[in-house]
Amino acid sequence: MSRPICFASDYGYADDFAGVCRGVIARLAPDVRVIDVTHGLPQRDVLAGALILRNSLPYMPDQAVHLTVVDPGVGGPRRAVALRSHGDRLFVGPDNGLMMLAVARDGGVAEAFELTNQELWLAPLSATFHGRDIFAPVAACLADGLPLDATGVAVDTATLAGLELPELRRHRDGLTATALLVDRFGNVTLNLRARQLQDAKLGDNVELICGSERFLARVARTFASVRPSDIVVLVDSYGQAAIAVNAGSAVEVLGLQPGDQVRLRRLG
Amino acid sequence: MSRPICFASDYGYADDFAGVCRGVIARLAPDVRVIDVTHGLPQRDVLAGALILRNSLPYMPDQAVHLTVVDPGVGGPRRAVALRSHGDRLFVGPDNGLMMLAVARDGGVAEAFELTNQELWLAPLSATFHGRDIFAPVAACLADGLPLDATGVAVDTATLAGLELPELRRHRDGLTATALLVDRFGNVTLNLRARQLQDAKLGDNVELICGSERFLARVARTFASVRPSDIVVLVDSYGQAAIAVNAGSAVEVLGLQPGDQVRLRRLG
Amino acid sequence: MSRPICFASDYGYADDFAGVCRGVIARLAPDVRVIDVTHGLPQRDVLAGALILRNSLPYMPDQAVHLTVVDPGVGGPRRAVALRSHGDRLFVGPDNGLMMLAVARDGGVAEAFELTNQELWLAPLSATFHGRDIFAPVAACLADGLPLDATGVAVDTATLAGLELPELRRHRDGLTATALLVDRFGNVTLNLRARQLQDAKLGDNVELICGSERFLARVARTFASVRPSDIVVLVDSYGQAAIAVNAGSAVEVLGLQPGDQVRLRRLG
Repeated sequence: MSRPICFASDYGYADDFAGVCRGVIARLAPDVRVIDVTHGLPQRDVLAGALILRNSLPYMPDQAVHLTVVDPGVGGPRRAVALRSHGDRLFVGPDNGLMMLAVARDGGVAEAFELTNQELWLAPLSATFHGRDIFAPVAACLADGLPLDATGVAVDTATLAGLELPELRRHRDGLTATALLVDRFGNVTLNLRARQLQDAKLGDNVELICGSERFLARVARTFASVRPSDIVVLVDSYGQAAIAVNAGSAVEVLGLQPGDQVRLRRLG
Repeated sequence: MSRPICFASDYGYADDFAGVCRGVIARLAPDVRVIDVTHGLPQRDVLAGALILRNSLPYMPDQAVHLTVVDPGVGGPRRAVALRSHGDRLFVGPDNGLMMLAVARDGGVAEAFELTNQELWLAPLSATFHGRDIFAPVAACLADGLPLDATGVAVDTATLAGLELPELRRHRDGLTATALLVDRFGNVTLNLRARQLQDAKLGDNVELICGSERFLARVARTFASVRPSDIVVLVDSYGQAAIAVNAGSAVEVLGLQPGDQVRLRRLG
Repeated sequence: MSRPICFASDYGYADDFAGVCRGVIARLAPDVRVIDVTHGLPQRDVLAGALILRNSLPYMPDQAVHLTVVDPGVGGPRRAVALRSHGDRLFVGPDNGLMMLAVARDGGVAEAFELTNQELWLAPLSATFHGRDIFAPVAACLADGLPLDATGVAVDTATLAGLELPELRRHRDGLTATALLVDRFGNVTLNLRARQLQDAKLGDNVELICGSERFLARVARTFASVRPSDIVVLVDSYGQAAIAVNAGSAVEVLGLQPGDQVRLRRLG
């Protein structure tokens, strides 16, 4: 019984990078199902990729092999690893923190191996495309039933690279949050969980302060509950607070980019 | 025997939206085949989506489940529905007209249900991502054999939301058409069927009047029958009249956007 | 036993072109696996497409059917063909040189047929979308076991359209190469194989002359071996020399586009 492979990367769609990895998987494990999670992860942005992988995880098949590639350090000293979560999902990719939020959501790391079994890799090994030469073939073998410990040597899970998430700041009259992600609709996800938004008791109307600019926004449940062009703070479909504009783009209206801070100030 | 799912949306490729829906389907119906029709439907543009779904329908497997999502009213009062066409295809999506041209092409609506059986949905239900939480799981269940009437309550098909298509205007010396769609090659599809183009007897050369600008164009069968950079009015691969530029972009040359009117005037 | 279909085109992702071809394949051969190599081949650029198909070929399953579409001459006199390589892969697409570098890499052409068996095509045949109406259905039938000679009439392989690759020029102090491809990371592939780069003995540092501009670059094995923003000449993952910028874009920094010449001059 094979595991499906959930494949996410920053390879984009213009090139053949993701397609070549799908080919490598099909050569090694022709019956394994590949689910393309997305190949639009923000380029070389490990934190954004980690957040998206965490968000999408619960919607992917149990016991999947997660092939995850955002790998700005390819060819350098960063390790290649395969992990098992306590939820019995497998993760294959660079040891740069990319998979760690998703693994944490699935119960944390149960065991970890550095990919050192070169018999599983493609030869010759390129210096710049380990997705194709290491991660895809190892994921294919794992999906087909290879035991995890055949991929390399066990590593102390405490040595795995972590991630630093920006911290939320609380004020008497509100919060200062950080923009984490933007999506194609121009919605901006903040480092603010639904529960934290609720606890802040901001009321129905807030002032958003982005740099030197100030905007009025509604706190509401959906786009459709405000008028077109109105700014709304809502809980997005992943349980995270986000800024949106009904029938418009919060990125354009507020000029926010990932990493920017925004202050949410209670009114009245 | 399962039905394949034909999945079309305006989710784009930058985000994980379509991938998460694929994951949801794979969790519920691991053996169902998913055919990605496109996730590049014009954003929030129900009419354009409806036209593209109608065009692509005959090329999709018979008895497919069509999972269709362009849903600017998500979270508002618009209903979620599942339909069966007289051609025995199933359609799942928002009741905003999106699927109606495709259903009409497949014989019209045979039966319609409002999706009210919450046992089929993901929980908790988000306010903004019904593609993931309602439409994808319902489509997966239908593909796996769930009877249509198990998705909710029957609705009068006359109450389903319709679509308004722009009307063609005829003149003594030609036609005024409306641009409906543009594609990646910059070709502009008009609200003008092959038969209507023929009936207008425009001859081999026409003047195109777009706002205050005028262009000469050939009426021809293919790009290749005019010189590079020449403008051509042809019947596109879906049987619809379109304006194209050989080895160029009609959108760029004529400055047309969907919704714009263009007059086709007979010469001589 | 069916063959998988490896599908590559310049159809892009905004439209339903690739999806419609997938639908056609699923109608005719529901059990055949389709591997999307990429639909981001540079638009109407046969040479770039041919290079990418050649590069990706070894990573695709043996005995695949390669459905390849970059077809600026669709509707004109160019032939539609199906080829078998000596490596027993099948290729279906326009006879414009697109598949010839990949076929050459797989041992060269063993036999070639012009697609003339109209019983395999969709009807009515469009003038502008042979991917859907001819290539996809023929590929589906071949994947399902149709003998190659049932697709049409044998053609002399010497009459197949070829491709002209730009030539490398050697100087006493280096080389003049041509930019062939750019990828999403802004890396620029040159018409220079790893072996040719090595033979040129350029040393560790070179001057790159692009038009009137000059840049210093390192010759190195990986991005990670130079500092951020540094220019590096490396062997890419397909064994081809490329110009890259660590954590940046060579396209932006050097202003190179496919077809541009760049001189690599030995220093010291």
